[in-house]
Amino acid sequence: MAGRLAEGKEVTDAIRRHDPLVKGFASDNYAGVHPEILQAIALANEGHQTSYGDDVYTGALQEVFRGHFGPTAEAWPMFNGTGANVVALRAMTAPWEAVVCAESAHIHTDEGGAPERSAGLKLLTVPTPDGKLTPALIDRQAWGFGDEHRAQPKVVSITQTTELGTLYTPAEIKAVCDHAHQLGMLVHLDGARATNAAAALDVPLRAFTTDVGVDVLSFGGTKAGLMFGEAVVVLNPDAVRGLRYLRKTSMQLASKMRFVSVQFEALLAGDLWLRNARNANAMAQRLAAAVREIPGVEVPRPVQANAVFAILPPDVTERLQKRFRFYTWNEATGEVRWMTAFDTTEADVDAFASAVAEEINSCA
Amino acid sequence: MAGRLAEGKEVTDAIRRHDPLVKGFASDNYAGVHPEILQAIALANEGHQTSYGDDVYTGALQEVFRGHFGPTAEAWPMFNGTGANVVALRAMTAPWEAVVCAESAHIHTDEGGAPERSAGLKLLTVPTPDGKLTPALIDRQAWGFGDEHRAQPKVVSITQTTELGTLYTPAEIKAVCDHAHQLGMLVHLDGARATNAAAALDVPLRAFTTDVGVDVLSFGGTKAGLMFGEAVVVLNPDAVRGLRYLRKTSMQLASKMRFVSVQFEALLAGDLWLRNARNANAMAQRLAAAVREIPGVEVPRPVQANAVFAILPPDVTERLQKRFRFYTWNEATGEVRWMTAFDTTEADVDAFASAVAEEINSCA
Amino acid sequence: MAGRLAEGKEVTDAIRRHDPLVKGFASDNYAGVHPEILQAIALANEGHQTSYGDDVYTGALQEVFRGHFGPTAEAWPMFNGTGANVVALRAMTAPWEAVVCAESAHIHTDEGGAPERSAGLKLLTVPTPDGKLTPALIDRQAWGFGDEHRAQPKVVSITQTTELGTLYTPAEIKAVCDHAHQLGMLVHLDGARATNAAAALDVPLRAFTTDVGVDVLSFGGTKAGLMFGEAVVVLNPDAVRGLRYLRKTSMQLASKMRFVSVQFEALLAGDLWLRNARNANAMAQRLAAAVREIPGVEVPRPVQANAVFAILPPDVTERLQKRFRFYTWNEATGEVRWMTAFDTTEADVDAFASAVAEEINSCA
Amino acid sequence: MAGRLAEGKEVTDAIRRHDPLVKGFASDNYAGVHPEILQAIALANEGHQTSYGDDVYTGALQEVFRGHFGPTAEAWPMFNGTGANVVALRAMTAPWEAVVCAESAHIHTDEGGAPERSAGLKLLTVPTPDGKLTPALIDRQAWGFGDEHRAQPKVVSITQTTELGTLYTPAEIKAVCDHAHQLGMLVHLDGARATNAAAALDVPLRAFTTDVGVDVLSFGGTKAGLMFGEAVVVLNPDAVRGLRYLRKTSMQLASKMRFVSVQFEALLAGDLWLRNARNANAMAQRLAAAVREIPGVEVPRPVQANAVFAILPPDVTERLQKRFRFYTWNEATGEVRWMTAFDTTEADVDAFASAVAEEINSCA
Repeated sequence: MAGRLAEGKEVTDAIRRHDPLVKGFASDNYAGVHPEILQAIALANEGHQTSYGDDVYTGALQEVFRGHFGPTAEAWPMFNGTGANVVALRAMTAPWEAVVCAESAHIHTDEGGAPERSAGLKLLTVPTPDGKLTPALIDRQAWGFGDEHRAQPKVVSITQTTELGTLYTPAEIKAVCDHAHQLGMLVHLDGARATNAAAALDVPLRAFTTDVGVDVLSFGGTKAGLMFGEAVVVLNPDAVRGLRYLRKTSMQLASKMRFVSVQFEALLAGDLWLRNARNANAMAQRLAAAVREIPGVEVPRPVQANAVFAILPPDVTERLQKRFRFYTWNEATGEVRWMTAFDTTEADVDAFASAVAEEINSCA
Repeated sequence: MAGRLAEGKEVTDAIRRHDPLVKGFASDNYAGVHPEILQAIALANEGHQTSYGDDVYTGALQEVFRGHFGPTAEAWPMFNGTGANVVALRAMTAPWEAVVCAESAHIHTDEGGAPERSAGLKLLTVPTPDGKLTPALIDRQAWGFGDEHRAQPKVVSITQTTELGTLYTPAEIKAVCDHAHQLGMLVHLDGARATNAAAALDVPLRAFTTDVGVDVLSFGGTKAGLMFGEAVVVLNPDAVRGLRYLRKTSMQLASKMRFVSVQFEALLAGDLWLRNARNANAMAQRLAAAVREIPGVEVPRPVQANAVFAILPPDVTERLQKRFRFYTWNEATGEVRWMTAFDTTEADVDAFASAVAEEINSCA
Repeated sequence: MAGRLAEGKEVTDAIRRHDPLVKGFASDNYAGVHPEILQAIALANEGHQTSYGDDVYTGALQEVFRGHFGPTAEAWPMFNGTGANVVALRAMTAPWEAVVCAESAHIHTDEGGAPERSAGLKLLTVPTPDGKLTPALIDRQAWGFGDEHRAQPKVVSITQTTELGTLYTPAEIKAVCDHAHQLGMLVHLDGARATNAAAALDVPLRAFTTDVGVDVLSFGGTKAGLMFGEAVVVLNPDAVRGLRYLRKTSMQLASKMRFVSVQFEALLAGDLWLRNARNANAMAQRLAAAVREIPGVEVPRPVQANAVFAILPPDVTERLQKRFRFYTWNEATGEVRWMTAFDTTEADVDAFASAVAEEINSCA
Repeated sequence: MAGRLAEGKEVTDAIRRHDPLVKGFASDNYAGVHPEILQAIALANEGHQTSYGDDVYTGALQEVFRGHFGPTAEAWPMFNGTGANVVALRAMTAPWEAVVCAESAHIHTDEGGAPERSAGLKLLTVPTPDGKLTPALIDRQAWGFGDEHRAQPKVVSITQTTELGTLYTPAEIKAVCDHAHQLGMLVHLDGARATNAAAALDVPLRAFTTDVGVDVLSFGGTKAGLMFGEAVVVLNPDAVRGLRYLRKTSMQLASKMRFVSVQFEALLAGDLWLRNARNANAMAQRLAAAVREIPGVEVPRPVQANAVFAILPPDVTERLQKRFRFYTWNEATGEVRWMTAFDTTEADVDAFASAVAEEINSCA
């Protein structure tokens, strides 16, 4: 800790406590903030701005989002992904309606029960082979309309890219949307990694959202390079009610909102979002290619964005985790997950792939 | 919007959209981020850190908070004040217990019903003359123990400094705590402006919290100069249950938490918190002194921290609000509220006081 | 307990455990079931009926309620009063809207926090002199429309007869409704004792509900002589959403609903409701008249329905409560509450009034 | 509707609207009230009794339940099964804990989302072949302890008899309980048809509850012959918190509780519960035996209590449902469900089986 300083001398009392060269493959949210985002924050600093979103940065942000998602889009900055998902789903449902999602959906598996606990939402889950819903899979839960004994299915929630590293094509999402709408339901897309999807598909963000019928989107900023910040993006204004109030009561309304909004502007006004996503995706491909060459490593799932799943001998995993941070996905099968980020470099990947090879070999 | 740049040239696409010289007196959350805080954020950037709080900055933060609040203190960073209050109160209550607070408490008046909506909390409110609870006022709601028809009073929540700009003395808070504890109740302190209180009382933070029996504290960072961030500080470990889980399900768990924690470290490891608070308080005193000199302006409440309440003729208020941002507190009485911030300068105050005088005079 | 009986001999194994001649003045829900109601239950028994409300008794009930409340009325049987109030208020509000009510309202004071706990409802309370809201009192909480920091006032909930034994005139309720509707709000009437009100006012039930603009009513059956059963009566179909689903998720959907509905039919198809209410009211008047004659007893509130409030010396209360059940209303002032019921007789009242006199005299 | 009667003449204004001879096979809650239960209600009527459970009938009920479930049992009467389940599970969990149950569990499929909506409960479901959980199936969801991103598994909820008409043996339930307890979890048993289970197993009620480690039970009265009423029976007092308050805030506290309690006394003090359950079970066996003889009818599941599942040609089902009420269980497979009740007679069964044969034959 820095000592107390002479009066008037402005310097932070915080000290650097970590090695900025150490990176891992645990999650894209282990990364820090892209330097351009930090610059944008500094640029929005100083002076006074109206709090709670009535500032010029949040105002200007609407145009930026409309540039990507079309003229009906309306963006609502939130703190985090759980918050964005819960607020979006609350705004799309009445208190007796339910959400159909994949059994592997983040809202079901990784939010500690926040949708149920904080919003009373009922999730109707469907097992899937690859994390992706289809009309046929939706039908396994989308029934019982009008029967008060059944939570009323109202929203289909899909994740793009999925929790299993897979991608929906725009046509696949269109099929989901068309089917949901025929049933009188709405479609929510959890886009914590929507930028990775656009980069991987090589299409604009709207190609798999606005253009194919998605009603509401949680748009992820944190994993795309922000310090913090997600946005609920409403594409179909008729799909939501009370979002303004639900953001507040869901504790997602930032007081100094200019600092969320300007980050999104820096990400989306130019091509930073795309550069970041392309890098993360390319590094995943590089990693997959490298480890596929290593005998004893299996890559059991398609590598379509910035996740690589691999099956390793448990003792290899154990030794490797002492050198690099990453998570075991399935203890039973020995499957592990490696995520790449906007700041992953070729050197990072190569060093990691070498380490995988070393540990495999030292084991053999 | 900055144009698209030549490839490889790193520059933000966000542009400065506001005049950094313009300041107002609407709220201390209209201010930006203290430069030392921004520096600290940059210092924590780059490289990878474990997300969701298992990073070295959050780890180190505990020592910093213990330095202020004593060896039992445990700090839990959150996104915002509503979140910190709701998580703290949830952790202190079972689902059938209730919170006694002043009718003017922020949790009752300004959180859109978040405690009820997101946590099912029942608030039992008491009117107060000055925003402060006393043992006698607490007794107006702290009864019916064991009666299932009455939400069971379990927590007394007080605000320091209060929503009316007033201060509890340490002895007054001790009386509240002693009384609550005798009743088998716990005490929560909403410390969105706890630093202003310490500065105004000229005592350490623990003097009106740990040392007098407060069980749990919401410690405010945003109004003290952070970009965002509040902390639930547990002083009595027996007073809470499940905080780790409640933070997650209340959507207050930041993934890149190092950037919340390092801000708090920068604020609290040295004397930045105190410099900021002292400045805000001093500017409020300067403003109060200046406007008390102006015939036609009444300052109806004691100025004890960084809020000045004044009664103005409505047309003066109207014209003045065209020049400076501030809020009308009570339409009926013509009372307005002026808040000073860490970045308010003597020049800001003098310019504003002059404007008040001008508008009063132009009216007369 | 009755012994085990010879096979095939049908007799209950329950035994009478109480003295049917003992009555008190604690609450109208200490009374049992009116014999005509029991007969109706027997009449609906045997054979099979579709459960969950699709039976002929519930079907027929609609006509009965429409006879009282007009052609738009729709009745939804529920188990109890808390349930009816919570379901009604949930159906009238979105999850960010709030309910304005008197500080003395049953939903605020006597339901253990059920509106907040089970429905997330925010109650905005107003102190009143007599348990009755007025347009001016409503205005103390009906503000802040459009401000996300304030729970949005949407419903005014009044109680008829009030928790303080007072009555609204139809004109007073009309003024409340007109005012609420001008503000874009709706009116809910907690009619746990609506029959007592009609009897006291000597008007039809619709005179202070449908005819003056009440949108939704909780209609009380239990205190009117039923074994159990309340009904949410929707007078303005546009005022509610999802009631069918909310009744189920609020755990108020009876499976053998015919036995709730036939009780209401027995109460309301003829004049049983009126006979019961008139008796209870008359007994309260008789009691009030008797005790007003006793020196040392004060009757501090108007006796307008079936409640009598009295102020007694504490030791008198203590001795009297050993002979008859009733509740102390306010320890501080010595005020007690005496309720009469459909089964209270003149002899019961006279015996009780004599006992009051005796205890007063033995004290003097 | 009976006309208005001469004054003083006590007669109900309700009229019999149904044919008491018509019975169906839709659900055991289509049946009415057993005559002995009605007698018991009459016996508890008249005079005054303290409301909300402080009456002599509710007091006496504890002994009755202890006779069946052992000396630690404590019974809490509720209105209905959804209410009993929700209150029990709320009392067994903290607000961040979750319930593991079969995908076919009533709490998941048939309560409209009440556990999530009214209690914020997260259900973690497991597909099962026969509606029954096993230690291995529990393990599919009972993991992630201590991880705040996962709702914390705390309760295993099983149904006896299951929603698929199957039975757990006491040993099977013991295995579930032992496994759950080893994991630090608790066991809840949804006993809406617990009496059918005891009758089918030919063991006392405690043999598959108290004696094998079940912590809390929802004990069903309605389907066993009551008018209404279920009870949460706490077998392990350490397994629950705040049940008294949760019953109230969950809107399950009956004011005239004597009429719930005396029904349970009549059911359980003697052998009425057993007579009723044995009859229902025997009638299911009779029905199964009869329809197994009919070519073209398949009985795909074991008939272990009072449910018979059958697969019929769709047009047979359609014609048969015009003559008798019953539900289609699975449109896709043509499976239907037939329930027998305490009041189903041999003649009812034989008439129905004949009708099945007729419709099959008329189809062929």
